[in-house]
Amino acid sequence: MTETSGRIQRHRTADAVVDLTLDGEPVAGREVVLEQTRHRFLFGCIGFDLIDHANGTAADPAAAARNADLWEGVFNFATLPFYWGRFEHERGKPDTERTLKAARWFADRGHPVKGHPLAWHTVTADWLLDLDNEEIARAQVDRIRRESQDFAGVIDMWDVINEVVIMPIFDKYDNGITRLCRDIGRIPMVRLVFDAAREANPNATLLLNDFDMSAAYECLIEGVLEAGIKIDALGLQSHMHQGYWGEEKTEAILDRFSRYGLPIHFTETTLLSGEIMPPEIVDLNDYQVDSWPSTPEGEARQADEIERHYRTLLAHPAVEAATYWGMNDAGMWLGAPGGLVRADGTPKPSYDRLHHLVNTEWGTPPTTLATDAEGRLRFNGFLGDYRVTCDGRRAEFTLDAPGDASLTAALA
Amino acid sequence: MTETSGRIQRHRTADAVVDLTLDGEPVAGREVVLEQTRHRFLFGCIGFDLIDHANGTAADPAAAARNADLWEGVFNFATLPFYWGRFEHERGKPDTERTLKAARWFADRGHPVKGHPLAWHTVTADWLLDLDNEEIARAQVDRIRRESQDFAGVIDMWDVINEVVIMPIFDKYDNGITRLCRDIGRIPMVRLVFDAAREANPNATLLLNDFDMSAAYECLIEGVLEAGIKIDALGLQSHMHQGYWGEEKTEAILDRFSRYGLPIHFTETTLLSGEIMPPEIVDLNDYQVDSWPSTPEGEARQADEIERHYRTLLAHPAVEAATYWGMNDAGMWLGAPGGLVRADGTPKPSYDRLHHLVNTEWGTPPTTLATDAEGRLRFNGFLGDYRVTCDGRRAEFTLDAPGDASLTAALA
Repeated sequence: MTETSGRIQRHRTADAVVDLTLDGEPVAGREVVLEQTRHRFLFGCIGFDLIDHANGTAADPAAAARNADLWEGVFNFATLPFYWGRFEHERGKPDTERTLKAARWFADRGHPVKGHPLAWHTVTADWLLDLDNEEIARAQVDRIRRESQDFAGVIDMWDVINEVVIMPIFDKYDNGITRLCRDIGRIPMVRLVFDAAREANPNATLLLNDFDMSAAYECLIEGVLEAGIKIDALGLQSHMHQGYWGEEKTEAILDRFSRYGLPIHFTETTLLSGEIMPPEIVDLNDYQVDSWPSTPEGEARQADEIERHYRTLLAHPAVEAATYWGMNDAGMWLGAPGGLVRADGTPKPSYDRLHHLVNTEWGTPPTTLATDAEGRLRFNGFLGDYRVTCDGRRAEFTLDAPGDASLTAALA
Repeated sequence: MTETSGRIQRHRTADAVVDLTLDGEPVAGREVVLEQTRHRFLFGCIGFDLIDHANGTAADPAAAARNADLWEGVFNFATLPFYWGRFEHERGKPDTERTLKAARWFADRGHPVKGHPLAWHTVTADWLLDLDNEEIARAQVDRIRRESQDFAGVIDMWDVINEVVIMPIFDKYDNGITRLCRDIGRIPMVRLVFDAAREANPNATLLLNDFDMSAAYECLIEGVLEAGIKIDALGLQSHMHQGYWGEEKTEAILDRFSRYGLPIHFTETTLLSGEIMPPEIVDLNDYQVDSWPSTPEGEARQADEIERHYRTLLAHPAVEAATYWGMNDAGMWLGAPGGLVRADGTPKPSYDRLHHLVNTEWGTPPTTLATDAEGRLRFNGFLGDYRVTCDGRRAEFTLDAPGDASLTAALA
């Protein structure tokens, strides 16, 4: 077992002893079928592509249904878009209904949903430019309250604010959020939006999210925590359009950002199956190409990198979620070949690799096991939900902490 | 007048009307000699080279005296070294006496002195490694109290803490200050050292100083201010071994760091008169060369850049001080030709250029002027102290704010 596998084993699995009963009697010396039905770890992906599917408005319903199957074949956690400039392009006309229907589609299938983002200077509402800073602050707070309440119970996790490090000094174009943040400062900005989100949905998990992995984000986090603002999880983006970070860099980042004792979400991971973006590009949005194809060599490399990246994340106990930023090449940000599925809907090697990791190496597909003479089922499994069946009867249980787990389960 | 000159004029000079009297009578229609004796702007330089001179221990007293004359020809503000690993190489044996004598030498000549630094992870005391973190914190606080009190009245300005952005993640070598900062966090570290310095010398001007001009330093500052820690001035280093920043970058930095309403000190400026360090060097300390000569072309370039840099700084109202990091090439950090004076003691063009700016363009060398019929002397002058003489009688006055100034001065 490699050192990484050992850490994954230690942090992500339990050695379970399940006392299995049927009508109050131990199920001794019997063959049963064990299956993991859900991972505790959040294997996330954006669900933008499935909004039409969920709303029954997909242009190609059959293709959309295949996409949905592929999505659920690997992922158990969705991120849905709340970019203000699109969600409420015209003031007072939020895209609530359609988004809520999509969120319910995921939630009804047991997949938690995160909204992204409630505050950001990019793709923000143009109409903020007509307001003064006090009015912008009020509109921002009102917007957060509205979405938090409208989606509560369906979406209880939010990227509350995105990219605060650059927010007040963002100089690509004028926008209301940069104006406000520059005026009141980063920490008061974070306080404003977190207070609004917390108050509107006290049950929500609230994230601070950034792409800046430098000491700047550390300094921001330390200032925010020192100011007494409660952050539930730290979001670290990881768009690797300029090349896979490698284990060493990823581990160094985990080392630095786990110092705060907060859960870490890798919120936005991209790995390419085509040419890598040149290193001199600073703002990824500046890279515009006519065609950016997925290549066989690129696909082989991407599959290896996906595996290495996810192994590194699972080996670190602070990481609770990893969201891949787009299953499909079709419609991908910048036109980059970052999907796990080609534009024609066929899975790349990276899809198969991740599928194997999630469902086979780290999961428990239906597996026949025998109980012992006392009716005990012993196995090592990844944290999450399980189902055990025997003669058409079934029981469910959950492994929710690493280490030794003693449980009882009654077949019904 | 250029736009920069206009701003320098607006922020740095006063239109003075001085009612000049002699024995209570207006000195009407007389010729007088006006001279600026001190700039309000702090034209600083390190005074490390003059410690031996001040202590009478210079190896070449005549050369040291020439150096002292050159220093005072341009500068009015000294920075003296308090690197813990040198100042108290052996625990309990601080280099107080010698440093205090040097500080007095400057102070007696009217030049304020700043101590640099009270807390830093580089060149810190090796013996901290034998202590646990609580003991390191106590030693750091004790050290700050001791220096603050021992030098109070002579040194009333301190770079309290240096390079906090990188401090807890500095990984070149193990040291006690990084250990402590990593343990308690950046903001508690700043609070620890500022509280100690403030309490030990409530009259001191206390600086936070960093080389990191990115958003990281902004985030640190915002966190520190939000935490209620009082910073008297922000120190921005500007070692330009990799090339002059240019007006645009310098102005952008001033724009970003002046948002906090705090005075800004350019604490450590270096501009080379030789080859520029390659851009791929990240930690300047990594660049080691056998010989790094000053060249004629380099000296011409340096003189121009010095002028442009100082003009940019004086044109921004937030800047109160600019400290050049070494008048002499001899003994310069990294062996770089960053001095204004060559290793052989002869001034470079940059020295002459800065001398001209400080003393002639921005200063008032002894100048004959006439009072009007009411005994009024009218002139535009840079903020600072002035002396006016007439028939062997003299008066002194100070211009301490830009704009119109009405003063009275009685010749005595």
